[in-house]
Amino acid sequence: MIGLDLGGTSMMAIALSHQGRMIAARRRSTRPSLGPDGVTERVAKTIQRLLKDLGKTARFVLGIGIGAPGVVDHRKGIVTYAPNLGWRDYPLAKNLQSYLDLPVIIDNDVNGGAVGEYVLGAGRGSRNLVALFIGTGIGGGIILKKKLYHGSYGRAGELGHIKILPDGPICGCGQRGCAEGLASRTAMERDIRQAIASGRPSIIPSIMEQSGRDRMTSSVIQEALHKKDVLMQEIIQQAQKNLGLLVASIVNFIDPDCVVIGGGVTDRLGESFLQPIREIATQHFLRQSSLEQIAIVPAQLAGHAGGIGSAILAWQRLEKVQIGKPGRR
Amino acid sequence: MIGLDLGGTSMMAIALSHQGRMIAARRRSTRPSLGPDGVTERVAKTIQRLLKDLGKTARFVLGIGIGAPGVVDHRKGIVTYAPNLGWRDYPLAKNLQSYLDLPVIIDNDVNGGAVGEYVLGAGRGSRNLVALFIGTGIGGGIILKKKLYHGSYGRAGELGHIKILPDGPICGCGQRGCAEGLASRTAMERDIRQAIASGRPSIIPSIMEQSGRDRMTSSVIQEALHKKDVLMQEIIQQAQKNLGLLVASIVNFIDPDCVVIGGGVTDRLGESFLQPIREIATQHFLRQSSLEQIAIVPAQLAGHAGGIGSAILAWQRLEKVQIGKPGRR
Repeated sequence: MIGLDLGGTSMMAIALSHQGRMIAARRRSTRPSLGPDGVTERVAKTIQRLLKDLGKTARFVLGIGIGAPGVVDHRKGIVTYAPNLGWRDYPLAKNLQSYLDLPVIIDNDVNGGAVGEYVLGAGRGSRNLVALFIGTGIGGGIILKKKLYHGSYGRAGELGHIKILPDGPICGCGQRGCAEGLASRTAMERDIRQAIASGRPSIIPSIMEQSGRDRMTSSVIQEALHKKDVLMQEIIQQAQKNLGLLVASIVNFIDPDCVVIGGGVTDRLGESFLQPIREIATQHFLRQSSLEQIAIVPAQLAGHAGGIGSAILAWQRLEKVQIGKPGRR
Repeated sequence: MIGLDLGGTSMMAIALSHQGRMIAARRRSTRPSLGPDGVTERVAKTIQRLLKDLGKTARFVLGIGIGAPGVVDHRKGIVTYAPNLGWRDYPLAKNLQSYLDLPVIIDNDVNGGAVGEYVLGAGRGSRNLVALFIGTGIGGGIILKKKLYHGSYGRAGELGHIKILPDGPICGCGQRGCAEGLASRTAMERDIRQAIASGRPSIIPSIMEQSGRDRMTSSVIQEALHKKDVLMQEIIQQAQKNLGLLVASIVNFIDPDCVVIGGGVTDRLGESFLQPIREIATQHFLRQSSLEQIAIVPAQLAGHAGGIGSAILAWQRLEKVQIGKPGRR
């Protein structure tokens, strides 16, 4: 199967063997300015090149799964609403299929990531899992009773818009109090820029200048922490506190046995980022819950989770196979 | 079937006909000081009296469902942890069965309430439902894909311990920031007593004195609002704001088609209590969600929801019938 994670800035296509191994991958920029049809053509070309890369193995590819950013009607194959791409009610599955001689299914990109981590990553062997991805935004995917849970209108898992501070800063959704407006990488960058503008000393601007970046990427965060920048440490601690509360709310709500935390910052910083989140979350669990029962673990598939999970979803829907094989965590 | 809602202060047993009608009911005080065995004996006697009330109809009773306050292992029939009763790992189903010639199943009381509202109350005909009960605490029950959802360890739906204000007042669970510590009736009473102690004028003390009550019951709240007490209005508005945020978090997380709000205050005040919660929640939904899709409705079964739902759960587990019949809302 082939899975493609369609992001606002880049797309990542991967080929997954029947044994669950990633046997090929291709990355390309997305360029939303091309419009929905232009982006779809680019998606098709990326997949065609990946099929070419596979050579003779390409004949084992039985279908394509796409993970799209935003609200997706997975039954109809329509991207209902994707603000990062500027799409509304776009029939991605149908239009993509006109380029390819293979069946296409689509789902939300973060749902793909959750399925990837559940079947082949950090969530193997769990029963009820929540995957939380922290990047420019905060997204989530929910596996319940070993199945991807979509909700009533395909919008389940908007964990970035759980409210954790009523009068907090305004989030990208236009409201105050969202976890995303407090603890996403975008929120951290906003707070750092404000602090620097108000005269706080920090080596972050010089790190960004040296690396030639104009955004505070995960690698900038990593370097600033490595060099013990006090402002960066404060901002990360604040994010960890808020993420700990978010994880506690998730656990108290849905009682999962596994919470997977992924996204750029987690992938870079690993356990040093995760451990404080885990500690704060545990303090806020109800008495009977304990870390022995609930694994709070870093994602394992990094930037490939969405593509891998989308391939698995294609498998599941096109071949009617069980989503998760039993496995050990 | 017979269902009994076992609360910390009273128990309510109801008999439900095969047509889903409540044909008899009995209420009794619980008296936790009797200890687990003493309370179990009292539960058994209450059920025996209800069976006697039923006369010849009693032979149609095929089993008993108990809704217990706290964490319940519904598979083993054990009350794992019930702080209001002071119980730990108590085999309620087995011990109760020794008094009664009928099979007994147990579950969490709020789960029972959610099932009651789902099958015979305000949530009829929905697919994914969250029921939120606001009383001395805040509890929740979750129906997903038409089935009661228990979570990995039987603790799903602890909606009172979703964090909505990190540095808020300390909750009964010992932590800060919980919805229960901000918007339960207990929290409202605490804030009112503090305000009055600090000199705020209010007619609440005289209402409580006249009615001979030492607690701020739902009827005291209703009367104070009716008499336009400014302090009471403020406290209710604050609770409504926090409950609106809680409902928004629930919707953004699990994407239900129905949220039922119940408990004493809602039962008393009805729409005037609910409408502001609905408005605040809607403001915090993600753009694509709208009230047309998500019904936020008051509970319909008042104090009987837990008993009715527990009877339905007994039906489902003992007779292996489908939990929810299709119906209209």
